[in-house]
Amino acid sequence: MTSQAASKSDYGAVPLGLGVTRGLAAFLARLRFEDLPETAVHQARRGVLDWIGCALAGSRHPTVDKLLPVLKALNAQPQATVLGRNLKLGLTEASIANGQMGHMLDFDDTHMGGVVLHASSPILAALFALAERGGCNGRALIAAYAAGFEAGVRVGQAAPGHHDGGWHLTGTLGTIAAGAACGRLLGLDAQQMTHALGIAATQAAGMQQNRGTMCKSFHAGRAASNGLLAALLAQQGVDSSEEIVEGKRGFARIYSNIAKPELVLDALGTSWEITRNGYKPYACGVVLHPILDAMVALGGKRLLTPDAIGRIEARVHPIAVRITGLGDPKTGLQSKFSIYHASAVAYLDRGAGIAQFSDARAAAADVAALRDKITVSTDESLRKDEARATLVTASGERIEAHVAHASGTVDNPMSDRALEDKFIANATLALGDDRARQIAATAWQLDKLGDAREIIGLCA
Amino acid sequence: MTSQAASKSDYGAVPLGLGVTRGLAAFLARLRFEDLPETAVHQARRGVLDWIGCALAGSRHPTVDKLLPVLKALNAQPQATVLGRNLKLGLTEASIANGQMGHMLDFDDTHMGGVVLHASSPILAALFALAERGGCNGRALIAAYAAGFEAGVRVGQAAPGHHDGGWHLTGTLGTIAAGAACGRLLGLDAQQMTHALGIAATQAAGMQQNRGTMCKSFHAGRAASNGLLAALLAQQGVDSSEEIVEGKRGFARIYSNIAKPELVLDALGTSWEITRNGYKPYACGVVLHPILDAMVALGGKRLLTPDAIGRIEARVHPIAVRITGLGDPKTGLQSKFSIYHASAVAYLDRGAGIAQFSDARAAAADVAALRDKITVSTDESLRKDEARATLVTASGERIEAHVAHASGTVDNPMSDRALEDKFIANATLALGDDRARQIAATAWQLDKLGDAREIIGLCA
Repeated sequence: MTSQAASKSDYGAVPLGLGVTRGLAAFLARLRFEDLPETAVHQARRGVLDWIGCALAGSRHPTVDKLLPVLKALNAQPQATVLGRNLKLGLTEASIANGQMGHMLDFDDTHMGGVVLHASSPILAALFALAERGGCNGRALIAAYAAGFEAGVRVGQAAPGHHDGGWHLTGTLGTIAAGAACGRLLGLDAQQMTHALGIAATQAAGMQQNRGTMCKSFHAGRAASNGLLAALLAQQGVDSSEEIVEGKRGFARIYSNIAKPELVLDALGTSWEITRNGYKPYACGVVLHPILDAMVALGGKRLLTPDAIGRIEARVHPIAVRITGLGDPKTGLQSKFSIYHASAVAYLDRGAGIAQFSDARAAAADVAALRDKITVSTDESLRKDEARATLVTASGERIEAHVAHASGTVDNPMSDRALEDKFIANATLALGDDRARQIAATAWQLDKLGDAREIIGLCA
Repeated sequence: MTSQAASKSDYGAVPLGLGVTRGLAAFLARLRFEDLPETAVHQARRGVLDWIGCALAGSRHPTVDKLLPVLKALNAQPQATVLGRNLKLGLTEASIANGQMGHMLDFDDTHMGGVVLHASSPILAALFALAERGGCNGRALIAAYAAGFEAGVRVGQAAPGHHDGGWHLTGTLGTIAAGAACGRLLGLDAQQMTHALGIAATQAAGMQQNRGTMCKSFHAGRAASNGLLAALLAQQGVDSSEEIVEGKRGFARIYSNIAKPELVLDALGTSWEITRNGYKPYACGVVLHPILDAMVALGGKRLLTPDAIGRIEARVHPIAVRITGLGDPKTGLQSKFSIYHASAVAYLDRGAGIAQFSDARAAAADVAALRDKITVSTDESLRKDEARATLVTASGERIEAHVAHASGTVDNPMSDRALEDKFIANATLALGDDRARQIAATAWQLDKLGDAREIIGLCA
């Protein structure tokens, strides 16, 4: 990638001698829709579609009923749409709500390129609020969305110890990504963008300690609103350090035990982070996805009832079981942390969407019967996105499945059709089938929209 | 302190077997005004008075003119007073503005007990907004204020590497302090308070990298509003980790390379952090205060014109010059980082308030003439709050001053009279002398107020 960057340094928009933060800011401030290759634009269409679906599905979650009364009391001015609800709130409050809803079900997109970042929830929750206030065309929205990916992922790559240090990157990097995206949509100049990054980063927060609580999804909403505020303040002339990434007490050093700030500018403008975004076919953590693919494949070969199955042997990378070892989940939420439940239900239902992690499916007799027949072994020689499953029938016959790369990852992407199917299922929960199909059709034409509010309005 | 705690464990409100976070939360939830010794109550009166003065003086700073248009555009609903301005904003926005104004001039109170925390700006900015919405008496406000100190300082003590790690504690610990204070004012139960701490801590942010920029004071405002939101969400049932301080990926471990969570509960309920708060007689960093005391003392012995002075030798702890070595400051802001300017002006003007760090004084001929005659040497044998100065007259006579403990610190506190003089000077800048004296009289009676809005209303 370095040689590519060198060969295109005249484009890279990073004048010689600028530091990392100012170099990144100069690039982001100059980024135009026309700079993006079609692969990046298409990922933006897919990302918007998928995120809206996740937020709409999330809008029905009970946590939202705790969040919204607080936000309404703070600012019920109808400035920006809360997706899937008959409600508008202030820009800050709508971006908190939409960001949290997008990440609520752990079903939103995941960038795994040196980070574990659910970038769209913070970025798009912030951009939707800003777009609704000021209006913008679809191309400007896409350029800002791509800018957010570049900032969030690259700053994360500059801090390689960040995730292992205990941070929830969707909170921390999400704030920076949202700040950069909003800065691009506002048309900040390079100096203002430097400050937007500095004001955003200095609000970056979110601890993995809060996994399994309502705070995890809150991090995404908080990141969206903090990034939005950062860009608005920078536009008004509020300043910050100009070395917020690489400085002695900057992000790469204090949020990580290893600092690689130079990676931020590597192949900038030639290699687009949004093209390496992943989407989740299953409504649970990505570590489970390879074995769920294998289970779906087994069911596709021959779907047996539990009593016709002797046992199922799952072989996975060790990371898959680290937080999903729960054998006997009692609730839908718990069932997301059970490789046994997830594998059983994926076989029986030929998928693992929101319905498969409900209280009802966690308690269902057929699932319980099958999960008792599943054994899991770990295998260091497997990649994280690889898994093997063997079904031994009651009569002793063996049926095997091997997944080389989990679906939804960069090496085995979900097709547009699969992504739309996922979207329709998600969106229908909140808005019904007709509206869902209307939104999908609009998202595929995102870059043609004269006013991005067309698609936002459909989500109300 | 441990033995004290043990002897009063029946009060301590920390039922045996609770973890650190839940123990702290149980204590905070039960804390009542009646629990506080008079020394703590009096520090609360002093702290409120001093903070209001700092915020009023800060309300005239040009940075506020950049901040307010953004906050107004976000939420101009008149819910809470912006101090010193003819303006009300939403709760979130007013707490951002007031928190930032309080810390704007680096003139607000400082707790140095294992932390470097300007606690009042985040705590009181949040409490004032909440008190204005719901109303509360002065005693409830004081109890909540004290609760904020306990939470912020103690969580900081649990993370001894936190400050050296590059964090701005007024941002990070300030968020936790504000969350606890608001939780107390809202009357949260122990469970909700646990969550308020968890939601607050997971928003904790602020980097020292942003020293010398507008972000530094912004951290205080952001902390106030984030803490306020945390308490409101917890009240509504939003949950969090119940081990946000001591957990494997909790605050003490991921914000610090050393974790001492057990310190949080040490002498809780018998030793009050608010009683160890310090106040600044000078409008610059505390590291300069000992030498400024010495300079004021020299001037008090005999005030000479610069041409009658041969030289002045200053001897200080090395920390005093680490960020204040600027020899020839051009602006008022720069002059705060010049030990030469600060020392010269403190001698000539017999003090170092806001006026002494103005552009005019930075450029003044008498100050420039004197600062050229000042030499600074560092001495490891001095304490951080200690300094020596020797003035050698043009005729060779030596005049000496030794400061054992800088004024405003715990070991040499500012008198109530000195504190009120500082307040009057600060408040008069924004509201005139009459109103300033009215506020001071009210603050000294804070615990007698039936409605805390009486004092807030005077600050508009």
